[in-house]
Amino acid sequence: MIAIFTDFGIQGPYLGQMHAVLAAEAPSIPAVDLFPDLPPFNVRAAAYLLPAYSQYLPDTAICLCVVDPGVGSARRPLALQADGRWYVGPDNGLFSIVMRRATQVRAWVINRIPERLSASFHGRDLFSPVAAGIACGENCPGEAVGTDTLVAPPWPDELPEILYVDHYGNAVTGVRAEALDRDAVVEVAGRRCAFRRTFAEAATGEAFWYPNANGLVEVALNQGSAAQQLGLRVGTQIGVSV
Amino acid sequence: MIAIFTDFGIQGPYLGQMHAVLAAEAPSIPAVDLFPDLPPFNVRAAAYLLPAYSQYLPDTAICLCVVDPGVGSARRPLALQADGRWYVGPDNGLFSIVMRRATQVRAWVINRIPERLSASFHGRDLFSPVAAGIACGENCPGEAVGTDTLVAPPWPDELPEILYVDHYGNAVTGVRAEALDRDAVVEVAGRRCAFRRTFAEAATGEAFWYPNANGLVEVALNQGSAAQQLGLRVGTQIGVSV
Amino acid sequence: MIAIFTDFGIQGPYLGQMHAVLAAEAPSIPAVDLFPDLPPFNVRAAAYLLPAYSQYLPDTAICLCVVDPGVGSARRPLALQADGRWYVGPDNGLFSIVMRRATQVRAWVINRIPERLSASFHGRDLFSPVAAGIACGENCPGEAVGTDTLVAPPWPDELPEILYVDHYGNAVTGVRAEALDRDAVVEVAGRRCAFRRTFAEAATGEAFWYPNANGLVEVALNQGSAAQQLGLRVGTQIGVSV
Repeated sequence: MIAIFTDFGIQGPYLGQMHAVLAAEAPSIPAVDLFPDLPPFNVRAAAYLLPAYSQYLPDTAICLCVVDPGVGSARRPLALQADGRWYVGPDNGLFSIVMRRATQVRAWVINRIPERLSASFHGRDLFSPVAAGIACGENCPGEAVGTDTLVAPPWPDELPEILYVDHYGNAVTGVRAEALDRDAVVEVAGRRCAFRRTFAEAATGEAFWYPNANGLVEVALNQGSAAQQLGLRVGTQIGVSV
Repeated sequence: MIAIFTDFGIQGPYLGQMHAVLAAEAPSIPAVDLFPDLPPFNVRAAAYLLPAYSQYLPDTAICLCVVDPGVGSARRPLALQADGRWYVGPDNGLFSIVMRRATQVRAWVINRIPERLSASFHGRDLFSPVAAGIACGENCPGEAVGTDTLVAPPWPDELPEILYVDHYGNAVTGVRAEALDRDAVVEVAGRRCAFRRTFAEAATGEAFWYPNANGLVEVALNQGSAAQQLGLRVGTQIGVSV
Repeated sequence: MIAIFTDFGIQGPYLGQMHAVLAAEAPSIPAVDLFPDLPPFNVRAAAYLLPAYSQYLPDTAICLCVVDPGVGSARRPLALQADGRWYVGPDNGLFSIVMRRATQVRAWVINRIPERLSASFHGRDLFSPVAAGIACGENCPGEAVGTDTLVAPPWPDELPEILYVDHYGNAVTGVRAEALDRDAVVEVAGRRCAFRRTFAEAATGEAFWYPNANGLVEVALNQGSAAQQLGLRVGTQIGVSV
């Protein structure tokens, strides 16, 4: 399958045009919108969400990743294989956390420039055809490069920050739950949130943290919106104490 | 096909991760988002919408239904066949109206616990694999149980209440249009709404009720938002008079 | 593939029910949501967006187009072939700009009325089955008519108006970029916007116009929302000067 991971959002003609390219060039491969509404232009947030949300995909899945504020500038188009799984997207740090956590990484700079290449929509014109080709078993149309040549921002291993707020008002952080003990307290917006294993374990209206279904620390409120009640948004810092 | 019916919403990584499981385990079966943004946590509203929105599916469709506020608690995972069509989801009342209206129902409590079972996302980890398996012709991995053991809340046959407000501002109720005469008046938020067969039959700005395309009484406003003009939202009560 | 172009919006049970029909009647044909959230009821805006957003589809794609405020009235259901590509939808002007720009157009009025035809959802009941049938190689179930019998509003060749605002706040107009010189200035909401080839070429916070990835003039703001900063919405007029 091809799994789309992008900040294009679910509205408008963006996802649809990528799907149209994939349907034209890889019609027998299912394409799914794995995470279609990442925070706009936020490469760092996406970099931490990518390993968490791609980890459960089959190894044969190809992640088509487009968070690309520098589209039209000189940033390089990239394909890489991290522990066997393919990722396609811009070389802007988006893959840096996936790479850091992988045992084996190989990278290619894409050098097949499509006939029609818009200045603003490489997701459709460049990355989708490459992902479709790889999904169909073609060789990656690029030049192998050392992974030490790729953009690698000096970001921490865990990012103590809200990276995504979902439509229930749950707030996903960049901290892996496995990095925290169960008696850790997450402090956010002046509130101290204790660990609860499930929503059902929290009192109604209680703010708590729990290991979300993708292994990240998430701040939530039983039967309410944590984001609204606590005033959380993308970029809000969190603290951890015991 | 597999038809997803859920309150996960169209945003975020929830639908996409379910699609990824379905694409991995049933790659040749189309999966469609039949109703992806049911009112959150509202099992009762979903229970009345389910028969209306699944009735036109082919008999071979499998309805993957996840409105599951009790995920992580003791509620049982269920598969059932109602008049031939499969439904998979939690035993929390979600299927009670479908069952009540069906002639023949068989039910199984799912007893195949997946290796990886998150506490909060059984839609992905438990229900999607079961739906994919059934779609591929596997036996339902569960223990047959009597339908009298299933959760069956004492809800009425018709629910005189707004269950869903769509993005045009039309308000779907839990009353079947076939239960009303054409001269019935729907009273809602202090307004009396007469029957109109189509939007084109209503005057501009007139609030009216009509049998929607799924057989439910719907309150609408020609070329305007009934929800906004009348102040309707999920849970608003309606009355019916003649 | 079947490409859906509609104002049904991404929320609710509308797109999903169309997909369910397509999956039932053309299970091996991919269906993509090319442009699912066109401005509601706005046939004119859709008419100008359609050629821009369908032009890059493969010739074998079938465009299933439903912007249909007159559903339930006497407007005719239509299938047409414009320069080889199929379009299915209502005869209300929606196809008028596609037709005007095509070299060869053939049209049919659909005369196969489905057994179940709701008054309000011809997208599901009438247009989707026809599109599925054509996609499967069936003949168009209609009567050939002269294109001079079709609804053809007296709209201009370029529409100097905002037709769509995307979730970044970029504002798409109905003017083709090829109609403008690069030194043209787009005036909108009292602001003068110069040409920039890409977002990266604009200063932070600068409002500019650029040829979007579908060849239309689009007003944008580097790292901000043009719609919000300039107060743009669907219907806002633009002027062009040099």
